[in-house]
Amino acid sequence: MANFKGHALPGSFFLLFGLWWSVKYPLQHIWKKRQHGRRQDLPLLSNKIDLIEGIIKVFFAFVGIMAEQFVPDGPHAHLYNGDWVKLMNWQHSTMYLFYGISGIADVLSMSPLPVPAGLDRFALSLALFIEGFLFYFHVHNRPALDQHIHSLLLVAVFSGSASTMLEVFMRDNSLLELIRSSLAIVQGTWFYQIGFVLFPLNGEDWDLESHGNIMFVTMCFCWHIAVAFLIVGINYTVVWWTTKKFGERHKANTEISLRKTTYTDSSSQKALLQESDEES
Amino acid sequence: MANFKGHALPGSFFLLFGLWWSVKYPLQHIWKKRQHGRRQDLPLLSNKIDLIEGIIKVFFAFVGIMAEQFVPDGPHAHLYNGDWVKLMNWQHSTMYLFYGISGIADVLSMSPLPVPAGLDRFALSLALFIEGFLFYFHVHNRPALDQHIHSLLLVAVFSGSASTMLEVFMRDNSLLELIRSSLAIVQGTWFYQIGFVLFPLNGEDWDLESHGNIMFVTMCFCWHIAVAFLIVGINYTVVWWTTKKFGERHKANTEISLRKTTYTDSSSQKALLQESDEES
Amino acid sequence: MANFKGHALPGSFFLLFGLWWSVKYPLQHIWKKRQHGRRQDLPLLSNKIDLIEGIIKVFFAFVGIMAEQFVPDGPHAHLYNGDWVKLMNWQHSTMYLFYGISGIADVLSMSPLPVPAGLDRFALSLALFIEGFLFYFHVHNRPALDQHIHSLLLVAVFSGSASTMLEVFMRDNSLLELIRSSLAIVQGTWFYQIGFVLFPLNGEDWDLESHGNIMFVTMCFCWHIAVAFLIVGINYTVVWWTTKKFGERHKANTEISLRKTTYTDSSSQKALLQESDEES
Amino acid sequence: MANFKGHALPGSFFLLFGLWWSVKYPLQHIWKKRQHGRRQDLPLLSNKIDLIEGIIKVFFAFVGIMAEQFVPDGPHAHLYNGDWVKLMNWQHSTMYLFYGISGIADVLSMSPLPVPAGLDRFALSLALFIEGFLFYFHVHNRPALDQHIHSLLLVAVFSGSASTMLEVFMRDNSLLELIRSSLAIVQGTWFYQIGFVLFPLNGEDWDLESHGNIMFVTMCFCWHIAVAFLIVGINYTVVWWTTKKFGERHKANTEISLRKTTYTDSSSQKALLQESDEES
Repeated sequence: MANFKGHALPGSFFLLFGLWWSVKYPLQHIWKKRQHGRRQDLPLLSNKIDLIEGIIKVFFAFVGIMAEQFVPDGPHAHLYNGDWVKLMNWQHSTMYLFYGISGIADVLSMSPLPVPAGLDRFALSLALFIEGFLFYFHVHNRPALDQHIHSLLLVAVFSGSASTMLEVFMRDNSLLELIRSSLAIVQGTWFYQIGFVLFPLNGEDWDLESHGNIMFVTMCFCWHIAVAFLIVGINYTVVWWTTKKFGERHKANTEISLRKTTYTDSSSQKALLQESDEES
Repeated sequence: MANFKGHALPGSFFLLFGLWWSVKYPLQHIWKKRQHGRRQDLPLLSNKIDLIEGIIKVFFAFVGIMAEQFVPDGPHAHLYNGDWVKLMNWQHSTMYLFYGISGIADVLSMSPLPVPAGLDRFALSLALFIEGFLFYFHVHNRPALDQHIHSLLLVAVFSGSASTMLEVFMRDNSLLELIRSSLAIVQGTWFYQIGFVLFPLNGEDWDLESHGNIMFVTMCFCWHIAVAFLIVGINYTVVWWTTKKFGERHKANTEISLRKTTYTDSSSQKALLQESDEES
Repeated sequence: MANFKGHALPGSFFLLFGLWWSVKYPLQHIWKKRQHGRRQDLPLLSNKIDLIEGIIKVFFAFVGIMAEQFVPDGPHAHLYNGDWVKLMNWQHSTMYLFYGISGIADVLSMSPLPVPAGLDRFALSLALFIEGFLFYFHVHNRPALDQHIHSLLLVAVFSGSASTMLEVFMRDNSLLELIRSSLAIVQGTWFYQIGFVLFPLNGEDWDLESHGNIMFVTMCFCWHIAVAFLIVGINYTVVWWTTKKFGERHKANTEISLRKTTYTDSSSQKALLQESDEES
Repeated sequence: MANFKGHALPGSFFLLFGLWWSVKYPLQHIWKKRQHGRRQDLPLLSNKIDLIEGIIKVFFAFVGIMAEQFVPDGPHAHLYNGDWVKLMNWQHSTMYLFYGISGIADVLSMSPLPVPAGLDRFALSLALFIEGFLFYFHVHNRPALDQHIHSLLLVAVFSGSASTMLEVFMRDNSLLELIRSSLAIVQGTWFYQIGFVLFPLNGEDWDLESHGNIMFVTMCFCWHIAVAFLIVGINYTVVWWTTKKFGERHKANTEISLRKTTYTDSSSQKALLQESDEES
């Protein structure tokens, strides 16, 4: 869909997932630390969240495929009638298909089935690789700036694929998760940037052969990276701060209720002491 | 052998090995889990299977070399008579040679000799690398679609070589084994696809310079990947399901025979309890 | 800043950091070894040094950005007025920005906040990557020697980025730290070399298209590498030798003071014996 | 030195080292296994061998530099007199220099100094990288076959550099040591092959632009790889077989002398029993 909306849609998907991950992973790490003390229900919640994420991914991929196929000027599931029909839409459908597979892998990994460790991360890495792979052969024979701005997208896509592949072997590495979140945000905002440059909303077309524009766009990509890491850093801090505040208030409440029921059961008291040790 | 059969032959080899691996590895992992309880004879069987696989590999490689050398229009073991004789066939023979070496490495690794750990995987990775390496210099000066469709083969070949190299250092990683199986299937089906495109059975030649054909073929390669992972996933599930069913029936049988011989030997009873603990 | 000073300034920064690291890391490793015995105050000092290093990095990055923006022929914070304003200076500012971010990551990693492990190394690796990334698109459409001499800089920059990325996962690896120090020195001296070649101080311009000059410059880059490793090796030896001498004199002093206070406390004696065991 | 001897000299060096390593490493692994039982003098010998190897490397590098500088048509240590003097010889000298540095690193690693772990492997990897790096810019503007045959050398050189770099982090990995040995042999025999092709001894010049020759040479490189692995495999087997035979005869001798001195000391008997357990 070669217009602004066609870039805003996938951009929003990636931005949404990037932001969501930048909140989810710090939260999960904090929960994991606390799990030793109490609140055995939270890890279950954490598993459920991953399951829902997988289902949403499958749903989004399905919506994406349907949109690409059945927009008014789409191929309507026809592939060949003398010549290939709307291959661009078919390629986009293929990209969505692999994100759908990644969603299915997420769901399977959360199921009690004996799925190989790391399948979910591998499927995501593959989806990113396929996206980059199809884009790579996508952008030949276009104006210089158009090619360049898409190549920069590939830097985010392939870096994301590589860092996610590392997660297959180094699971639960906080840093790799934050890198993945940041690169998803970069991809999201860069899709918007491509939309703004190639289909400017104010109608003033960019000179697609200007060397100055290419230099600016390269530098602008670096700024997107800086902003993405800033956003992830802020979310990380907010999550950490909030859970700390909440944890303290909760502890205070527990201590009050403890005083009421005190002198009754020494074993529960021990457990609580142990918990507050681990939380401090 | 530049015809349909010349692509179907290696395609069938890779497809066969890919399918076989996608059954063998889940089976071996399930056996390994059960090994702790009982059935000490199965790992021995598992070793024997690997040995037979190596011997079959050597045999196939030998057949491949002989076929390339002694087909009617082959070089018949002549390399140089004023000019190089049928270098294409010699290159294919070289590829088969390295798969033969990989088979020998498999056999040696199963032998009681003190072979360095990971030699079998390294030899397979090398064979894939040599295949890709020779293909890489193979496809210059050909029409655009011919070059492109062979380049896509290289993606599967070099990915396979890289993932097998990882197995040298991360042995018995379920995911890497499934990736290798999938990439072997992709290679197999893609050899068939090359055959269908370059030597169409219905006689309608493809336009080898059309950009649309190149775009379709790129996307089609992604579909092959998706199908390969689907096949491996199905095989994995079937194996897991079957062994579970078989395991339960077997356990039921054992429990019946146990009741008959009960009250006789308390130590054997303990062993059986232990076994069912580990199986559940 | 396309003149000699514009290359001497960043060159000096990198040279300074390379030399400093080649002293700091051996020192930290020696301190860590001794820490088991005594001198619990030194690790604290070591942490403070890292903190100060981070603050200096932020300060240098700030100075660099200001210099690039507000030199007489700089953009003075204007980005666009009909056309892009002084993009070269903006690109350099962007490079400094990421080194500033790396400095902030250093400070955060030394703070008591729950920062993900390896963030400081990742931020440094990213800063090096961004530097190389911007330089890569920087040097098109220039004379052959100019392009080549900048490409060689990229070898040092990307190798530094890769080796620093490895440090994220292999922390406190002496060798990787020495490699990073050496590559920083290489980058520093090579910036000077670029300055000498492109803006010769004696006024005799180099022939920027000569193949001989390109061959010499390539070889000269290797000499820079050899010299950088030599410098790092000498610093390593001097640090090791000095701390050994100092450690022995210190031990001798302690033994003298021990004799004076002898026969008084047997537990302190034990601690000292233990310490000298660990130091020998 | 653009003649047959100029390729035979470095070829012989690499061949020699490759063959030597293919004997040394299996021997060291066998010694290490036995070390637990007895013969504490052998590891010392093993260290001495590494030391001597380092010294020989330094000596060879020195000879190489001197030969390149002071052959009749060499630069005689002159670098610039109006134009660059014999840059080819200077580049070769630079290559030898880094192998000399690698020799020094070997010697230092065997010394009692606190050298960072893996320095010897890193220095060797760097020497190989520098060799490949200089060759890469060495072969422009030459006939097609000349370029191609040197590019193939680079495959062996950079693979060797990469596998040696892996050894920095995975020390004493039998397989990596065998790969390094094989790649050194490949490099050695390929230098000879380059000599045979570019400066044929029988005087019949090869057509340097023929596509057939390029195809043959590519395939021939694969044969060199196969032969190198065969040689390393044979050496490995011979070493293993010989030490086993020797070990058995030695054990038999010990048992005879044991019988003579029997009934005398029960503690020495125990030690011997323990030893034979570990050897079997």
